[in-house]
Amino acid sequence: MTERIFNFSAGPAVLPLPVLEEAQRDLVALQGVGMSVLEISHRSKTFEAIRDGAESDIRKLAGISDDYAVLFLQGGATLQFSMVPMNLLPTDGTADYVDTGSWASKAAKEAGKVARVHLAGSSKATSYDRIPAAADLEWSATPAYVHMTSNNTIYGTQWHRLPEIPRDAILVNDASSDIFCRPADFSRFGLVYAGAQKNLSIAGLTLVIVRKDLLERAPESLPVYLRYATHAGSESMYNTPPTFAIYVLRLVLRWLLDQGGLTAIGERNERKAGKLYAEIDRSGFWRGHARSDSRSWMNVTFRLPSEELEQRFVAEATAAGLDGLKGHRSVGGVRASIYNAFPDAGVDALVDFMREFERRNG
Amino acid sequence: MTERIFNFSAGPAVLPLPVLEEAQRDLVALQGVGMSVLEISHRSKTFEAIRDGAESDIRKLAGISDDYAVLFLQGGATLQFSMVPMNLLPTDGTADYVDTGSWASKAAKEAGKVARVHLAGSSKATSYDRIPAAADLEWSATPAYVHMTSNNTIYGTQWHRLPEIPRDAILVNDASSDIFCRPADFSRFGLVYAGAQKNLSIAGLTLVIVRKDLLERAPESLPVYLRYATHAGSESMYNTPPTFAIYVLRLVLRWLLDQGGLTAIGERNERKAGKLYAEIDRSGFWRGHARSDSRSWMNVTFRLPSEELEQRFVAEATAAGLDGLKGHRSVGGVRASIYNAFPDAGVDALVDFMREFERRNG
Repeated sequence: MTERIFNFSAGPAVLPLPVLEEAQRDLVALQGVGMSVLEISHRSKTFEAIRDGAESDIRKLAGISDDYAVLFLQGGATLQFSMVPMNLLPTDGTADYVDTGSWASKAAKEAGKVARVHLAGSSKATSYDRIPAAADLEWSATPAYVHMTSNNTIYGTQWHRLPEIPRDAILVNDASSDIFCRPADFSRFGLVYAGAQKNLSIAGLTLVIVRKDLLERAPESLPVYLRYATHAGSESMYNTPPTFAIYVLRLVLRWLLDQGGLTAIGERNERKAGKLYAEIDRSGFWRGHARSDSRSWMNVTFRLPSEELEQRFVAEATAAGLDGLKGHRSVGGVRASIYNAFPDAGVDALVDFMREFERRNG
Repeated sequence: MTERIFNFSAGPAVLPLPVLEEAQRDLVALQGVGMSVLEISHRSKTFEAIRDGAESDIRKLAGISDDYAVLFLQGGATLQFSMVPMNLLPTDGTADYVDTGSWASKAAKEAGKVARVHLAGSSKATSYDRIPAAADLEWSATPAYVHMTSNNTIYGTQWHRLPEIPRDAILVNDASSDIFCRPADFSRFGLVYAGAQKNLSIAGLTLVIVRKDLLERAPESLPVYLRYATHAGSESMYNTPPTFAIYVLRLVLRWLLDQGGLTAIGERNERKAGKLYAEIDRSGFWRGHARSDSRSWMNVTFRLPSEELEQRFVAEATAAGLDGLKGHRSVGGVRASIYNAFPDAGVDALVDFMREFERRNG
């Protein structure tokens, strides 16, 4: 077997090795079923058990009550940028958006096609290096909802405390790049969505957790696929769901539970990120992009003294089996994505590599 | 390894064994890449080669010219039911739909949310047992497009000749259950869409082939994910595409080319279906649902003398390793789905089983 390298990709991203091994075993013929997991009907008992198991494991892992529907959709966060306002924002209403990066900004733009958008705060002026402070957030009078992006993949920033929003407003969160990275009180949210390809499963699946009382806000004229109620009323089986991605999700959820659940995962993520930030802060050689209070546990972004050194760093790291470290073009430098499934050994290897690189180039 | 059975499921459906074996091999670590095909970034050179290969193989296999864009989307045919009219139907226009079954009817219903729909023909009165004859189709004066469903999975009917539509009208085809089942002149179509889980790949991928000059008809206000132009302008990489489903598609396309392309595949499909229809017609025991001139090469639907016998047939077939034969509840009886990847040996096994069943119960 080809040896595995350390994959720091921002997504699609690394999956737990036991998940890959189990998926590999089932890939030609599921035990006792006689066909591949890729071939089973979404109406079969085998798949129903997988789907039901994924939903119940999500509820167990994150403490999601029956007041919420758990939906398995397609189209990524990008389709959610539109589905959220199409379902929750009346055409004469206003939605408040906090602009913490490119994706948050794209989400606001799509909402603007449906109704009025109020920009409650932005860190654009400082290259999205922070989550706006509470004092810098100004809500509109009666927002239909408030939209936040809990982790900003490109810039490496993360909300570590939820915003205080107007009473009766609904908090909507794009959690694509940090869902289930630690315990969270989901009852604070009206709707949470997440593309699966970072912390949950493979690309092609979108998880939506939505309070059931919000489902009926959508106008009748909405396309059937774009109505949350369509999927909530049919256990996400109105049309053929992405069966294999849901199967991989199920395996990942089992793995998260086996690790000790979100408390244990959160401790591990904080420790992993802490090692990298400690190294960044150790000398003046590295320069973190995110302000200390906004640093992400999932995407660690930093610069080197020159672009030439940054290019060399990425090239040499790749050659050393540390892949996917090139920063997004809008920030430059280095980005280490260290999602739930990213192993401690990979973080240690990167820290060692950074020390050695600084010794040779510092 | 668990033995594989014959999977007659209507979709998700059987995949070629060499495709499964190659996917299995790559599932923990792609040769020379050091990570699973499930984990590779959609921005990596490895995935770009997979995506580009899938597109060029589609063009080669089906003779698709550069006048058409080839798009890899999500949301299944169901989202296309809405995307087609949102992109191609002006709010003061009319689209013509031919109602050949449940899915065609659902497509028309979604178009009706955008503008006027003219029902050009329907076989609903005869339980969708046929494709309407040319004489039974009446077009509106200037339809923005004409929508057809080339194969009707539930009823087992298929268009074997394209309809003659008004000059300047655009033909749109839902080819979810028969795409690439034989050679076709794609230049007759303005847009073809297909959920991948029957003849192309796994669930969670939608193939759209659209004439490029149609891309700009969409209104500016359309959600970004729902605009074909968004995806055509970014090689289907505006947001993260369903990478693994595209990888499996690539493997299936290679397999189709290795089989000799669509001419060879078409001959094989006609032969496979022919064997089953010959058996249905051999005695009075079986009763085909579809009228002879409309019989599908992909889904063969038939009834037995009683519902009790039908239940026994399906149960005994399942026990004998012939899985997924239960007909859809709206037709009843038996449905054998025999898509491109379904092996000849499985058809022969079903014919043998039918003979033996008739001998014991006839």
